[in-house]
Amino acid sequence: MLLVRGDPGREDVREGRPAGGGRGRGGALEALGGAPALLSEGLRRRGTDPGAERDGREGPAGRSPDLRAAGGAVIRGAPARCPPPGGGGVRTSSHCFIPPARVCYNPGVPQDERAFLDWLIRRRPFRRGRGVLAGIGDDCAVVRGPRGRTPGLFKIDSVVDGVHFLSKTTRPFWIGWKALNRSLSDIAAMGGVPRYAVAAACVPRGFGLARMKQVMAGLAAAARRAGVALVGGDTASTAGPFSVSVAVWGEAGPGGPVLRSGARPGDWVWVTGALGGSILGRHLTFTPRLREAREIVRRLRPTAMMDVSDGLGIDAGRMAKAGGVAIVLEGGAVPVSRAARALSRRDGRSPLDHALADGEDYELLFTTRPRRPRDVTGLSLGGVRATVIGRVRRGCGAWIIDRGRRRRIDAAGYEHLL
Amino acid sequence: MLLVRGDPGREDVREGRPAGGGRGRGGALEALGGAPALLSEGLRRRGTDPGAERDGREGPAGRSPDLRAAGGAVIRGAPARCPPPGGGGVRTSSHCFIPPARVCYNPGVPQDERAFLDWLIRRRPFRRGRGVLAGIGDDCAVVRGPRGRTPGLFKIDSVVDGVHFLSKTTRPFWIGWKALNRSLSDIAAMGGVPRYAVAAACVPRGFGLARMKQVMAGLAAAARRAGVALVGGDTASTAGPFSVSVAVWGEAGPGGPVLRSGARPGDWVWVTGALGGSILGRHLTFTPRLREAREIVRRLRPTAMMDVSDGLGIDAGRMAKAGGVAIVLEGGAVPVSRAARALSRRDGRSPLDHALADGEDYELLFTTRPRRPRDVTGLSLGGVRATVIGRVRRGCGAWIIDRGRRRRIDAAGYEHLL
Repeated sequence: MLLVRGDPGREDVREGRPAGGGRGRGGALEALGGAPALLSEGLRRRGTDPGAERDGREGPAGRSPDLRAAGGAVIRGAPARCPPPGGGGVRTSSHCFIPPARVCYNPGVPQDERAFLDWLIRRRPFRRGRGVLAGIGDDCAVVRGPRGRTPGLFKIDSVVDGVHFLSKTTRPFWIGWKALNRSLSDIAAMGGVPRYAVAAACVPRGFGLARMKQVMAGLAAAARRAGVALVGGDTASTAGPFSVSVAVWGEAGPGGPVLRSGARPGDWVWVTGALGGSILGRHLTFTPRLREAREIVRRLRPTAMMDVSDGLGIDAGRMAKAGGVAIVLEGGAVPVSRAARALSRRDGRSPLDHALADGEDYELLFTTRPRRPRDVTGLSLGGVRATVIGRVRRGCGAWIIDRGRRRRIDAAGYEHLL
Repeated sequence: MLLVRGDPGREDVREGRPAGGGRGRGGALEALGGAPALLSEGLRRRGTDPGAERDGREGPAGRSPDLRAAGGAVIRGAPARCPPPGGGGVRTSSHCFIPPARVCYNPGVPQDERAFLDWLIRRRPFRRGRGVLAGIGDDCAVVRGPRGRTPGLFKIDSVVDGVHFLSKTTRPFWIGWKALNRSLSDIAAMGGVPRYAVAAACVPRGFGLARMKQVMAGLAAAARRAGVALVGGDTASTAGPFSVSVAVWGEAGPGGPVLRSGARPGDWVWVTGALGGSILGRHLTFTPRLREAREIVRRLRPTAMMDVSDGLGIDAGRMAKAGGVAIVLEGGAVPVSRAARALSRRDGRSPLDHALADGEDYELLFTTRPRRPRDVTGLSLGGVRATVIGRVRRGCGAWIIDRGRRRRIDAAGYEHLL
């Protein structure tokens, strides 16, 4: 199943002027319709919504806004090439350059999670430390194990009422289930083995003991399923919505931790399961791909791996950025879930757009060397499919070739507003 | 400095009818005045406020309410003795009995953190697990280390706007500083060495990148001071107040982890520093007693240790309950901070009441065997004082002898409402 034409590593995405228009980090896409009610509060959805008009802001210093149609979306301030060094930016590799913060954060413009993360990743205290093998910027932190032991994995994640679930319609059991499984999905994304978890709940007055017990039952069920010991926690009252943060400590699996930065030009890009439409229920009831990840590590020796939590587009963009490469997906190869098709019939957005931008799939996105097999015959993933959906190229960003046109998809997914 | 008369272990607090009235877990104290504005939202303060009238509820099944004056406070439903077994309760030792949940949680009555924790501690999945040496119920979870290695410590804690700080008046730096140091204080309470931390922030819209950076600077400063690597995090948007949850992974110190359950009749009870009035600033700017704790472990071999986070009264009560003993403090020996005296001049409550009930002192409460020294000459705690403030007795609960009267103080401190 050859998805992308051309020899591995020969096509340079930076050089080819994208058919659908590129978007540099200096440009800006504003949120538009299509966000379900669940996400409307404090969240901006960056979709690939065809026909949607987008606000633009001034591009990187001195660059004039660049109007271009991408699948019907109007994008401004979008340089076609990765911006050159200068003005305080950081060159992460010979291929890719992170522009300086002042270019990204225009005053008066709402700040995004991405901007904050970029700032953090560049700060030394959060990047390095005694015993830290991989800090902020990957699915989990990787820390040195005791002598001769496997490295430790450390992760924290939160679920917030009105953002990750709606307490009015969600059974409290699923709040607990999701809260732990989100962190476990990140441990899975490293091919790791989770060991211990602690949970901190912020509880509004009147939430009540009965519901707290059900949340705990969800946490306990998720812990039991993954073989994790839930060893501690904290409850604090809040004037705001209910939230739970869960931290998980684990160990790297036998193949060592798989970082998201290891993708190299020519690699195959894979995804497990089918994507999109998780809002119809799977975003609560999913099970993290812990066993599948370990099987993938054992059989396919992935060069990079991460979980798809914010949307295939944005997450493929993160993997591309971490590796200093471009990721090019084949639209027809992306596995689209039944839920994504159901949503598509309701809202008219294409099933592929749902698969790219809905997020909360908690599937695994990974890359393998060109010589590794491209089919999963004999790969026992317990009924979970793994599909080759594209290739890694030299260049920047995440792209999709859909009906013969190439467009940039780094921005298809969720971002939290700060 | 002999504080409590009588031979160690000879006095049985259960048997002596307390002069100031006891309070069984079946009884209930309602919140009343005296809570500063910071704590009014979603928090109930259980004080030793003299003259305050308290709502009562029906005591444990079949027990008639027992009216009794305790330092001027009217307490109802308060059995003078630990309740006898029966009706589904749990006997934790030959001395102490935890009554069944249905006695504690009257329908329609706001539920407390304590009730939830009691429920949790009795649930097997949260108490036991592969490799878990101490689960929910102590300052940190203690988990088995790799073969031949020291056990691991795991802790999570949160700070919430309106509960633990007021974002309108607090510099964001101190929010981050406090968020990490609260968890570090729990690692200190075990005599442990913190290694790695992860932080999850729930961020209201409009909080802004500038303030987030200051919060991170506070986290980073606290991490640097304690030699902790801040290795990861998460940001989520919320419609509610700003909050940060921090999880810390550490290792037990050379003397092994010191649990809060080890106090035995006859032991001396100690506290570091001076207590009360933290609301005037120290609740934000404190430094966790990490080095002091390790020095205490090395020199005094404490039998039990914990940090004073919710108030000396409530925390001494927790230590007593964990060990199945009574803790009797000498009012005159409790070190009262300058801030507690300043508050006392403003509100008329005694400095001792502030020291017992204000909480957020983040000092160490610990016990030592009767033969250990009772003075700290030669104990290098870097200028921090350690004071003997009472003794451990057979029986239940925390008590104070103040101006010749003994009263129960388990309820003096904070509880979060659920």
